Amino acid sequence: MTVKQIQEIVVKAKKASYELAVVPSKIKDTAIRKMAEALENNSEAILKANKKDLTANKGLSKPLLERLSLSAPRINLMAESLREVVSLKDPVGEVIAGWQRPNGLWIQKVRVPIGLIAIIYESRPNVTSDCAALCLKSGNACILRGGREAIHTNRVLFNLLDTAAKRAGIPDGALQFIDTPERKALQYLLALDSYIDLVIPRGGEGLISFVQNHSKIPVIKHYKGICHVYVDEYADCSMAEAICFNAKVQRPGVCNAMETLLVHKNIARRFLPSMVRSYHDAQVEVRGCPATRAIVKGITRATESDWSTEYLDLILSVKVVENIQEAIEHINHYGSRHSESIVTENYSAALRFLQRVDSACVYVNASTRFTDGYEFGMGAEIGISTDKIHARGPMALEELTTYKYMIFGNGQIRT
Amino acid sequence: MTVKQIQEIVVKAKKASYELAVVPSKIKDTAIRKMAEALENNSEAILKANKKDLTANKGLSKPLLERLSLSAPRINLMAESLREVVSLKDPVGEVIAGWQRPNGLWIQKVRVPIGLIAIIYESRPNVTSDCAALCLKSGNACILRGGREAIHTNRVLFNLLDTAAKRAGIPDGALQFIDTPERKALQYLLALDSYIDLVIPRGGEGLISFVQNHSKIPVIKHYKGICHVYVDEYADCSMAEAICFNAKVQRPGVCNAMETLLVHKNIARRFLPSMVRSYHDAQVEVRGCPATRAIVKGITRATESDWSTEYLDLILSVKVVENIQEAIEHINHYGSRHSESIVTENYSAALRFLQRVDSACVYVNASTRFTDGYEFGMGAEIGISTDKIHARGPMALEELTTYKYMIFGNGQIRT
Repeated sequence: MTVKQIQEIVVKAKKASYELAVVPSKIKDTAIRKMAEALENNSEAILKANKKDLTANKGLSKPLLERLSLSAPRINLMAESLREVVSLKDPVGEVIAGWQRPNGLWIQKVRVPIGLIAIIYESRPNVTSDCAALCLKSGNACILRGGREAIHTNRVLFNLLDTAAKRAGIPDGALQFIDTPERKALQYLLALDSYIDLVIPRGGEGLISFVQNHSKIPVIKHYKGICHVYVDEYADCSMAEAICFNAKVQRPGVCNAMETLLVHKNIARRFLPSMVRSYHDAQVEVRGCPATRAIVKGITRATESDWSTEYLDLILSVKVVENIQEAIEHINHYGSRHSESIVTENYSAALRFLQRVDSACVYVNASTRFTDGYEFGMGAEIGISTDKIHARGPMALEELTTYKYMIFGNGQIRT
Repeated sequence: MTVKQIQEIVVKAKKASYELAVVPSKIKDTAIRKMAEALENNSEAILKANKKDLTANKGLSKPLLERLSLSAPRINLMAESLREVVSLKDPVGEVIAGWQRPNGLWIQKVRVPIGLIAIIYESRPNVTSDCAALCLKSGNACILRGGREAIHTNRVLFNLLDTAAKRAGIPDGALQFIDTPERKALQYLLALDSYIDLVIPRGGEGLISFVQNHSKIPVIKHYKGICHVYVDEYADCSMAEAICFNAKVQRPGVCNAMETLLVHKNIARRFLPSMVRSYHDAQVEVRGCPATRAIVKGITRATESDWSTEYLDLILSVKVVENIQEAIEHINHYGSRHSESIVTENYSAALRFLQRVDSACVYVNASTRFTDGYEFGMGAEIGISTDKIHARGPMALEELTTYKYMIFGNGQIRT
């Protein structure tokens, strides 16, 4: 695609964004329902395209192929997920705050769509339908840019979604798809800061840093999750074991799974041997610091790079720390500001950890695996933001909005 | 300054930011009070440094020299402005929302400092003290980078502020100053995205686009204000005249002053002649579209570039529009998303304008000049954001914060 073609898409989307911003919920909800139906009624065409992608990408790793591959039940789940977006409250129009000034000016802070959002993602084709629905429901026009490996699937999905949306009265141009895998196209897109209000990259480190390096548009990163559990000296050992097992083993391939376990030196001898046994029974490879390896034999040595690695796999690094402050500093230094948990029965330790750990989600006595839009009760999410500006943690409908001030006067002038 | 020196400053500031984040209001307020005293008690040293800057920059335009120059009363005003920050409510620690999940997890969304903020600004030395105090009060470490022309003044100011803050118990390193006018130093700074959480550029177009092009860190732009007043066909003419006069003339050199006046064609003949007379009496140069020039003789022709020019001066561009939709589209196309006002007695026109104009502040029947932290009742501000991400419009203490989720459990694991 040429610069000019990308620009045409973006200009059209921007124009549509102004219209979409004032479309009432009823029409948006009907559109999303129709989009769900379109997926269900065309599963054969979707699967055919998906087969093309799978054939063209045989060289991919098994987990990546698994993420790429669709089936009839998976398509039904995608449709279900759209219907869940319908059931969520439309955030647009909420009066967040309002007050009157001494001169009579009546100020209202009102929630409005952000405008035009570009979403750059990889592999999973369900991101195409989820993001289209979330943007639409929150009144944002969107430009979808999926990965090279899913292009046939995404093309078919997009055409179904876009046609259904338009039929239901969504302005033409509000949904857009960059139908090329070229990096150049992405670069053209990222330069159009006078039209695109926000870029959300979802994917691996390479993709995220490419976007960050080339974008003049504000970016909210959905970066890796290097999540920690810190077992304090005052932890309930059996609770700690259940939480640490859950955080690592229940679903290791996701961003809110634990990657590093920190253990206070005063509880390490009591806690670690049986914990490591449970991990080994569950096929978890444990990599330890010298103190860990002195307590439990037969553990591989953790290197410096382990502390900043997101394994997304049944691998865990373990470090014994001198005190809670060392744990907090380790997390703030090596973590990705995603989710961390302390297990403790000590009030002051809990408070210190909550206040001093600089992450989106900080837990006391619970698994990090709860960082998720549904688990938080916010509904479907566009991802988990690891940034601190605008949105932090699960990014759902409300986080896809901004605000403006509407000011009602009756002739006020400034003196 | 070398890359290494900049990096040392930034690493130190980041470390201090973790400490400052948990310093209680009482200490922060004492520090800001001491900073105010330090300015007042050292006005001679400040004025001496300011004289150096004024001598070194004789070539600057009059308004720029005026902005750069300090006096004893001005220094007292700077101290007063710090005391006003003391009187504002500390936003840190506010529980924005909280709810319990069916599994017993108790989630709290808590307001916290952003962390480490870099502020890049030009000329006015009072920005140094204002920004230091606002960042400190909101628990953020900050790196100040003023303009080349004010470097002697800023250096003295910074040393006074920093010494006073440290004496009151603010962590060493929380306030930082980049003591060189080199652009290279700024470039080094903008690359340190793993330490700096936010960059706020305040200044001219050149500075803003330099920051935007070189920063890997999130940027909240405080860009120009191309503000509009739209006089609707159903406007009260005398109210419209008062508002339009105020928005242009009361203080033309600021970002919330009107730059373009839009007039509905059905009221133009009634409204424009007397309006333009008032402007001419106030020495305002009026530049008009063909329709405007057909109605009032002796007006210079507005060119395409006038519609996107921030005059910051007694100059105004005027355009007659077919209808309200043309006014809205003109604003969304040429405006800078700052502040716009409609003057009308028609309910539907007011609603349409409020909903469809994509700006931070949208007024009905009031002057755009009210877009200001004090006028909004928010207190001192770091500036007016023209971005849509994180903060929009007046950016005061609350907008210098983010949030984190604190989650209280009693052993919850995910199944």
